[in-house]
Amino acid sequence: MNEFELIRLLTRGLPTSPAVTVGPGDDCAVIDLSIPERQLLLKTDAVVEGVHFTREHAPERVGHKALGRCLSDIAAMAGDPVAALVTLGLPPGFLPSYIEGIYAGMERLASRHGVAIVGGETTTNPGGLLVSISLLGTAPRDRYVTRVGAAPGDALFVTGQLGGSIEGRHLDFEPRLAEARWLAEHFRPGSMIDLSDGLAGDLGHLLRPGGLGAELHGKAIPVSREARLRAKASPSSKPALLAALTDGEDFELLFTLPSRRAVALLDAWKERFPKVPLSCIGRIRPTPGILLRDKHGTRELQAHGYVHFA
Amino acid sequence: MNEFELIRLLTRGLPTSPAVTVGPGDDCAVIDLSIPERQLLLKTDAVVEGVHFTREHAPERVGHKALGRCLSDIAAMAGDPVAALVTLGLPPGFLPSYIEGIYAGMERLASRHGVAIVGGETTTNPGGLLVSISLLGTAPRDRYVTRVGAAPGDALFVTGQLGGSIEGRHLDFEPRLAEARWLAEHFRPGSMIDLSDGLAGDLGHLLRPGGLGAELHGKAIPVSREARLRAKASPSSKPALLAALTDGEDFELLFTLPSRRAVALLDAWKERFPKVPLSCIGRIRPTPGILLRDKHGTRELQAHGYVHFA
Repeated sequence: MNEFELIRLLTRGLPTSPAVTVGPGDDCAVIDLSIPERQLLLKTDAVVEGVHFTREHAPERVGHKALGRCLSDIAAMAGDPVAALVTLGLPPGFLPSYIEGIYAGMERLASRHGVAIVGGETTTNPGGLLVSISLLGTAPRDRYVTRVGAAPGDALFVTGQLGGSIEGRHLDFEPRLAEARWLAEHFRPGSMIDLSDGLAGDLGHLLRPGGLGAELHGKAIPVSREARLRAKASPSSKPALLAALTDGEDFELLFTLPSRRAVALLDAWKERFPKVPLSCIGRIRPTPGILLRDKHGTRELQAHGYVHFA
Repeated sequence: MNEFELIRLLTRGLPTSPAVTVGPGDDCAVIDLSIPERQLLLKTDAVVEGVHFTREHAPERVGHKALGRCLSDIAAMAGDPVAALVTLGLPPGFLPSYIEGIYAGMERLASRHGVAIVGGETTTNPGGLLVSISLLGTAPRDRYVTRVGAAPGDALFVTGQLGGSIEGRHLDFEPRLAEARWLAEHFRPGSMIDLSDGLAGDLGHLLRPGGLGAELHGKAIPVSREARLRAKASPSSKPALLAALTDGEDFELLFTLPSRRAVALLDAWKERFPKVPLSCIGRIRPTPGILLRDKHGTRELQAHGYVHFA
């Protein structure tokens, strides 16, 4: 049983309440507690030594990543982060200076985005260091964006450049909070997600609710420099485009918009965020399946992004 | 460096914001987002295999404990739990049926207290199973209770019976949510905490903010049957009273109240919660130190509850 199957099993029939607007399965839960004009967002995420980082990584970068992952999920709903709690699982013989470094990285990122760190817990974790973040945020009552809402014909956009984040970007990315807020205010994406498991896999989360598919334009997919360098470095490496489609931890925004708004968005974006690439990478189709179109023709991507490259 | 020293080090100068009413150092953080009549409570807590439970414990009890610990912290603020997120750290070769059992235990407790489970995350955790809960709650705007507010002369109360929770109660306790809510509504405790690290240690958290002390009446401390049995079982066991003073994970409420209200509280409590013992165990003193008075006289408890027994 893999992680996704387990989550599906566990999230059947969970207790809910009238306050729950969006429950399990989106980037954040949305809770309605009658705050004038706002809804609450709730998110939790953990990074684990040996899985998401190693002791060789500077602790400041580990702290940045731990909090940044949760902030990226708030961005995916076009929300505003408010307050974070930190849970540390400490292995025997941990170095206080390393933990201080983790906090320094979290604090810098939190300050930049106006997030208060309001407490936390420490516990023993025999197998290695674990940093779990709980994040409370808010979003305008009728302007948060979920994974549900893509429509056939919609244009598909992605921010930044994809693939090869393992070279360092997975530790240093800047969550796209300002970009997402601006998008929701000016263009109201139909659906949005942040890329944590790779474009091809995360796109599936936008398509599944409506039984939809997508057509991607290979040439339009923004392949990162790292993905290109890695592809060149060894003949056994992933081709760069495949890396952009399937590598995890990009933490960029993927969203849909009626195609008649596409040009206006690209123009306005360039003016507002000149340093952040925005790419229109394809469109939503009415039937399931992700098609990739490039110079070799059109092929279907398999589950989890696997694709035969010619 | 121990856990408490580390926490003190890490919580100096954390980023905060105007929305933060109570930051690190209380049972929950309190956040003010202008909800009419309510404040938000935020709490996180983790249980780890080999530290807080073992594989021999039924998974339903582990799930109950994981959520119950957080609910107990909401109770300590006299709040109402609303929604929980669950983070699972899974070791290699975990059994899906065990995880299902953990969820079953959480769900039963959540349903009983009207808590929605609104999502979560799973991650790999090489060293063993870890269950971390993030909990959102609310409390009446001017009726939540913090650790700060004890006054000299106040009577000191504790619910339930103390010590020996390791015999099973640490997995099966019922968080005192209804009791705390009723208390705050009818008697407004000056300060309150839930007992997780032992009466003597946690009492310190109520005394420290005001530079206060306490006098405990040995005979009034409600020693549990388990603590008595364990004391009798072996000559090397903790004396039962010491167990009641220092054993962890009781998850009972410890609170202070002006002493002129003590009798009225005990009467009203007996009527409202006939099955839950409530004991007046001493009073707050104006100077630091915890004194224990029993048939042998009056002695001072040392840090962390250590005391020489005659």
